[in-house]
Amino acid sequence: MTHPKQILNVSYVIIALLASLLTPLLHADPLPSWNEGPNKQAIVSFVERTTQAGSPDYVVPAKRIATFDNDGCLWSEQPIYFQLIYISDRIKTLAPQHPEWKTTAPFSSILKGDMKQALAGGKKALMELAMATHANISTEDFNESVRDWLAASRHPKTKRPFNEMVFQPMLELLAYLRANNFKTFIVTGGGIDFVRVFAEETYGIPPEQIVGSSIKTGYEVRNGKPTLVKLPELNFIDDKEGKPVGIHQHIGSRPIFAAGNSDGDFQMLEYITAGKGARFGLLIHHDDADREWAYDRDSHIGKLARGLDEAKKRKWNIISMKNDWNRIYPAKTK
Amino acid sequence: MTHPKQILNVSYVIIALLASLLTPLLHADPLPSWNEGPNKQAIVSFVERTTQAGSPDYVVPAKRIATFDNDGCLWSEQPIYFQLIYISDRIKTLAPQHPEWKTTAPFSSILKGDMKQALAGGKKALMELAMATHANISTEDFNESVRDWLAASRHPKTKRPFNEMVFQPMLELLAYLRANNFKTFIVTGGGIDFVRVFAEETYGIPPEQIVGSSIKTGYEVRNGKPTLVKLPELNFIDDKEGKPVGIHQHIGSRPIFAAGNSDGDFQMLEYITAGKGARFGLLIHHDDADREWAYDRDSHIGKLARGLDEAKKRKWNIISMKNDWNRIYPAKTK
Repeated sequence: MTHPKQILNVSYVIIALLASLLTPLLHADPLPSWNEGPNKQAIVSFVERTTQAGSPDYVVPAKRIATFDNDGCLWSEQPIYFQLIYISDRIKTLAPQHPEWKTTAPFSSILKGDMKQALAGGKKALMELAMATHANISTEDFNESVRDWLAASRHPKTKRPFNEMVFQPMLELLAYLRANNFKTFIVTGGGIDFVRVFAEETYGIPPEQIVGSSIKTGYEVRNGKPTLVKLPELNFIDDKEGKPVGIHQHIGSRPIFAAGNSDGDFQMLEYITAGKGARFGLLIHHDDADREWAYDRDSHIGKLARGLDEAKKRKWNIISMKNDWNRIYPAKTK
Repeated sequence: MTHPKQILNVSYVIIALLASLLTPLLHADPLPSWNEGPNKQAIVSFVERTTQAGSPDYVVPAKRIATFDNDGCLWSEQPIYFQLIYISDRIKTLAPQHPEWKTTAPFSSILKGDMKQALAGGKKALMELAMATHANISTEDFNESVRDWLAASRHPKTKRPFNEMVFQPMLELLAYLRANNFKTFIVTGGGIDFVRVFAEETYGIPPEQIVGSSIKTGYEVRNGKPTLVKLPELNFIDDKEGKPVGIHQHIGSRPIFAAGNSDGDFQMLEYITAGKGARFGLLIHHDDADREWAYDRDSHIGKLARGLDEAKKRKWNIISMKNDWNRIYPAKTK
């Protein structure tokens, strides 16, 4: 028969054992791909200050909203935005149904593999390419087309699937924020429907938490089947001044954390970090030519100039990919 | 000194006590304002079928999305939409700054208290009234104006605050769905920013889960302060065919549950209940002249005709306010 004191002692042992098992879990580094330094410290400090009860910077969970740009912030964007590669590939797939494209710019340039020439036509050319590949198709068929493309395509330089050219440190940051009851949104200049196809699986961000550029959508009943059709008419450009507008339209309150990498994200960071209470603005500086790409002020993609000039004054954290991150991409799975 | 068996016995007693305390909670009726009957049974059965592991109709939590119309579905809408009463009151407040309104339709009619005459000008008059009260104002100032109005105003018939003219059975339904890991959205023909002001407190639905009609928004820095300004240009009408479009724009996937009350909700229910797997469509029939209002086919507000005609064929549940609900509004708090 066991003495009650022994039972108590056994209980203590079990509790101590559980504590020793849990301690490393509780104290495990939530951002292992981030090197120790002021930027990592600033992120952890912000999360602790906004989530610990009694902290003067405490924010209730409902107001813990964080927004992330996609191109160049969550995944790479060189040598051109990946959605442009989708467009180019899609034009080639659809070309047999459009014999006129062989001799019509900008399609003819795409079919010759000359993206630079195709985009020389500026915004008008880009819209023609976007509409030819994104409009007059049901949302279901469009989603399937993007899914198929992602599964079959590889990046020209890394030979990785595009959705594996995502930044491991940012995946950790998303998970860390969510573990602290932040709601994470993507606010992208890219197409909202395009990003939604892979964002849930890739980033853990569901379709209703994606804000992006869009063309209009129509609703009709086709042969008895309710169908949403993407229409050849611009709806919204979610870039620059459009980002705070898109945030207002979709989120309806001012987030407290924003991450971007280009001057297209400037107004999003400006708007979010101007709010009252604790705020966090983060810009990723692509300065790692060895492991990713190095570009900023003079880049045709992801230009970052004003952000670099004003970050210090605005207390935004400039993240050096080279110095702050000990790895860029996750391990290959495909 | 206590005998170990006594400790064990005490433990059993505590467990039994806890169980007896928890059992009524676990088995408490989640929908006490709903009378027993086929409609209540259908709701409970749908929730059980879609949430119980192993059920052939099981839906993963991420896909448990439910959409609710607002006017006439979550709160009353007679004698006119409450947002029109806000508009009318706001016109009167702003009138001193607009002496020309005294002699200009439709404003002059509003100032004379003749809403019917003001709306006789149709869509054009309505847009003029909406723009005069919703545009050329920052989103923050607009929100404050709606908050102040809600706090100070009372419904002409019930003398209740408008945000206490919400349907108690629907509050219970929202809570029941959320307790079963459904994400609840409002999809309203009313103004998205107007509804956001009170939806979180009134319905437990946060700003990012409101879909509605809108005017455009602009972003500018005013005296160093980033500001979102509501612009006098229509952005989106979230009614009829617009509802599936708004759902696509904001939610990006097809919900599995939809509740409405008028033919303005027809396409939302049509779209949602046409999806694969278990689906639920619900239309509230305002047939209770004693406790609320009775209207359907011939009403100028919340007209319900096609919905009544096709509900049976489409397996939508028609909720009789008179027979299915044992109470309409919550207890008064103000």
